[in-house]
Amino acid sequence: MTKTVTLSIDAMGGDSAPDMVVEGMALALKEIPDIRFLLFGQTEKLIPLLEKNPKVADACELRHADDVVSNDEKPGIALRSGRQSSMRLAINAVGSGEADGVVSAGNTGALMAMAKFVLKTLPGIDRPAIASLLPTMRGECVMLDMGANIQCDAENLVQFAVMGEVFARHVLHIPKPSIGILNVGTEVLKGNDSVKQAAAILSQTHLPIDFYGFVEGDAIGQGTVDVIVTDGFTGNVALKTVEGTAKLFAGALRQELVSSIFGRIGA
Amino acid sequence: MTKTVTLSIDAMGGDSAPDMVVEGMALALKEIPDIRFLLFGQTEKLIPLLEKNPKVADACELRHADDVVSNDEKPGIALRSGRQSSMRLAINAVGSGEADGVVSAGNTGALMAMAKFVLKTLPGIDRPAIASLLPTMRGECVMLDMGANIQCDAENLVQFAVMGEVFARHVLHIPKPSIGILNVGTEVLKGNDSVKQAAAILSQTHLPIDFYGFVEGDAIGQGTVDVIVTDGFTGNVALKTVEGTAKLFAGALRQELVSSIFGRIGA
Repeated sequence: MTKTVTLSIDAMGGDSAPDMVVEGMALALKEIPDIRFLLFGQTEKLIPLLEKNPKVADACELRHADDVVSNDEKPGIALRSGRQSSMRLAINAVGSGEADGVVSAGNTGALMAMAKFVLKTLPGIDRPAIASLLPTMRGECVMLDMGANIQCDAENLVQFAVMGEVFARHVLHIPKPSIGILNVGTEVLKGNDSVKQAAAILSQTHLPIDFYGFVEGDAIGQGTVDVIVTDGFTGNVALKTVEGTAKLFAGALRQELVSSIFGRIGA
Repeated sequence: MTKTVTLSIDAMGGDSAPDMVVEGMALALKEIPDIRFLLFGQTEKLIPLLEKNPKVADACELRHADDVVSNDEKPGIALRSGRQSSMRLAINAVGSGEADGVVSAGNTGALMAMAKFVLKTLPGIDRPAIASLLPTMRGECVMLDMGANIQCDAENLVQFAVMGEVFARHVLHIPKPSIGILNVGTEVLKGNDSVKQAAAILSQTHLPIDFYGFVEGDAIGQGTVDVIVTDGFTGNVALKTVEGTAKLFAGALRQELVSSIFGRIGA
């Protein structure tokens, strides 16, 4: 038996907020019926939405927040002036222990800055990272960092590896996840100093982890490892490259299907 | 009227050499009938292949080279000990003016090192770069560097931009190619120091170039710009990520088609 999870939600974050946020809560409820929400945002906008979604309303405690962090606000400014924002109050609820986690589709930089300031990082972890699940031929892998840390040293990469390993065990339910560091080749001598040193640390460690070694970009689609570790610059470019390639493929496929249909009509 | 181009060919480079190399020459002859080759490699292996490909034999001057640079040879070793290799002799032919360009499918690191040593770089260009053509929704784009330079400063990136621009004009026949620098966002404040400084230089320059600004990873598939500039680490990861995603898609599509065929048979 697992205990009921309470999530703190920033209702105002994201391009289609708050409508999309409430829709997302409804989807989450279908998958995890006993989940509970603390919903932070402008009550005048949220009350009509909750009236239309009685199941969400039942699972949710609404708390008013006047301010909204906009998408183009600099993280430092948001941290100083956004103390009454829905994002900040949602994060505070995790800090006070009222919620087990926080969800926001808003300004990523502001979210990282506020979360680091309010919640700190765990002992031994210097910087938070953004993790993303990616589809592979074998299922899914988790990749981090996806853009929170543009420049990373070996220590950062090692810490991302540890966080990714824990994520894969607890969220993906993989008993002993394999970990790879993204590089330009699989040989130990390849790459920049950060990846070489990080690989040396992860290879020599007595931690009970399954370190695979270096992987190349095609490991993302192939599912060579369960956890892919990289700096935020490379990770962000790789993630958006996957998106772009997928769209290119989908577009080409659609065109093929249309020509094939017209071809059949012609015939 | 264009003058006849003579290409110097390393017959022994690549996993399926020399058979695949001679096949490639046959394909090139179909597209450019008046092309000429200087073919460097082990004559005892090449003579039987040329006998089977009389068109290639007619277009080609065969020159014996005893040595072969292996795929796992370190660039520095290949440079010192590979003076009689097919790769080195093929490069030398460009240096002496006998050939207009050199083609090798062999050890990339050795090829870069030898080419830089024998041919030098053009004035104002510090390092050679590897360029690759990538499919986009609008056609093709050229991206560089793909892995020759793992760490790059702003000057390197600016030089890659200049080389990419010239390549796109002369090889892709784009009159005024647009140039983008790969980054984690399109805003001027995003990214590491190298990309920010390179963008500042390319924006302020009086060079007659069309500098678009920063592009993200999805610009590769979308064809947002004609030339994508990046460091060799990010470029290599992005290239292999495209390959991996394409394979993932092709695999999923094949599976869908198979199920759909079995579905129809079942029906």
